[in-house]
Amino acid sequence: MVDPDGIYYLGPKGSFSHEAALKIEGNHIEASSISEIFDKLSTNAIGVVPVENTLEGPVNETLDNLYTRKGVYVNKRIDMKIDLVLASRPDVELESVTKVYSHNHAIHEARNTLSKLGLTNFIPVNSTSKAAQLALEDKQSAAICSRFAAKLYGLKILKENIQDGVNITRFLVVSRELTEVGERTIVFFTVPDVPGSLFKVLEKFYLHNVNLSMIYSRPTKIIPWNYYFYLEFEGSISEAKRTGLLDELSKVTQELKIVGSYTTIPVT
Amino acid sequence: MVDPDGIYYLGPKGSFSHEAALKIEGNHIEASSISEIFDKLSTNAIGVVPVENTLEGPVNETLDNLYTRKGVYVNKRIDMKIDLVLASRPDVELESVTKVYSHNHAIHEARNTLSKLGLTNFIPVNSTSKAAQLALEDKQSAAICSRFAAKLYGLKILKENIQDGVNITRFLVVSRELTEVGERTIVFFTVPDVPGSLFKVLEKFYLHNVNLSMIYSRPTKIIPWNYYFYLEFEGSISEAKRTGLLDELSKVTQELKIVGSYTTIPVT
Repeated sequence: MVDPDGIYYLGPKGSFSHEAALKIEGNHIEASSISEIFDKLSTNAIGVVPVENTLEGPVNETLDNLYTRKGVYVNKRIDMKIDLVLASRPDVELESVTKVYSHNHAIHEARNTLSKLGLTNFIPVNSTSKAAQLALEDKQSAAICSRFAAKLYGLKILKENIQDGVNITRFLVVSRELTEVGERTIVFFTVPDVPGSLFKVLEKFYLHNVNLSMIYSRPTKIIPWNYYFYLEFEGSISEAKRTGLLDELSKVTQELKIVGSYTTIPVT
Repeated sequence: MVDPDGIYYLGPKGSFSHEAALKIEGNHIEASSISEIFDKLSTNAIGVVPVENTLEGPVNETLDNLYTRKGVYVNKRIDMKIDLVLASRPDVELESVTKVYSHNHAIHEARNTLSKLGLTNFIPVNSTSKAAQLALEDKQSAAICSRFAAKLYGLKILKENIQDGVNITRFLVVSRELTEVGERTIVFFTVPDVPGSLFKVLEKFYLHNVNLSMIYSRPTKIIPWNYYFYLEFEGSISEAKRTGLLDELSKVTQELKIVGSYTTIPVT
């Protein structure tokens, strides 16, 4: 992978994407949308984009950008466990909190725990980082945000691990450079609309004894009810070339796009 | 299917869901969320829920409700072509419009056409129906909404077919009663995490020469990176029982949930 000047992430500062991007050394730059990150990719600029999480599934904007853009590749995956905290100004105690700011998703995940503390007045805002900023300005409030955002904005943690369920979000490191070695490989493909067409693609993986770790379908947006598939399999491109799997796949697909093999930076 | 007292749809009044629900005679009742529609289902109340559209793909809240709830079935599908119009108060001319209200998705779809008319000041609101209401109150504004919403709120149509691309949305009629005959059948299933498990499910359809019309995967939310599959195939439950397909599927899946066969009310 290139040694990048710029590492673009989905802002605002203090977002989960920001925290993930910090796993890679370089000059971290905030972007206002996932598509903007893809716009910025160059020989010395890479991006960190969310691709999937355990509660909400795939991030469509990331999949659509990877599928439609040329010369964009995936090199690494970063897994992040999303732990939510309740945080306030350092001079505020839990007893004096009357309203709680956060993003709708985070409110949804923390509602049960917080209602047991008597907190039921939730105010939805655009992001958990925005919530942290607002909590800093308002002595009667707190924010649901990450520990990272709380620290960044100088907030005090009132309560930890307030979310229901396990929320792990996967991020991909995207660049202009293809990597052919790694633990897993990402491909996109389309198949003709005839019986057995998807079956014939999966059959190739079965015959090569290669496990699939993910498959998602998305509308192509060009022809109604035409789909593309996003598929991850275990093993690398170089291996799949050597065994003939990639050649065989190209014969049973209409379009086959190889997006890269990646290594994983594990959950922290 | 039951002759329902109540037909629940996702409001507000004038929404695309409302328009779809009117294809079925009965007492139409507004709900504030997709999950609330599922809550209301009873022996004499049915629901109309969006399930997929050509631009955005599946509607996750509908899939998750169908997968997790017991005794909820699909009986019909309603396809609606989403045509957007620019509409204003009857006493407003295009030249005097300085701002345009709509839902973010609709703004995105109509932005190209409207910018050619010199309209670039877009104000995002919660729904296209809300936009129509706001346009009625404000003489310098217009709304991007459906022809149906424009009519309902007494607006004048300034410009038709302002969206890019073809947006068809599919709605499902859901009830407490299983239908075993119809053009297509919906099933949900999970598979063990071993090589070839999805392949072995699709193989059954291939061997029976049954075409798949849709397949989506979604996180189960219980165990991280465990997925359930939403699959539609051509033909009815009664047919799939007769040929043995359903029996064979139950042997290669962990969980298999039959949600119903449906007939389609075509695009209008």
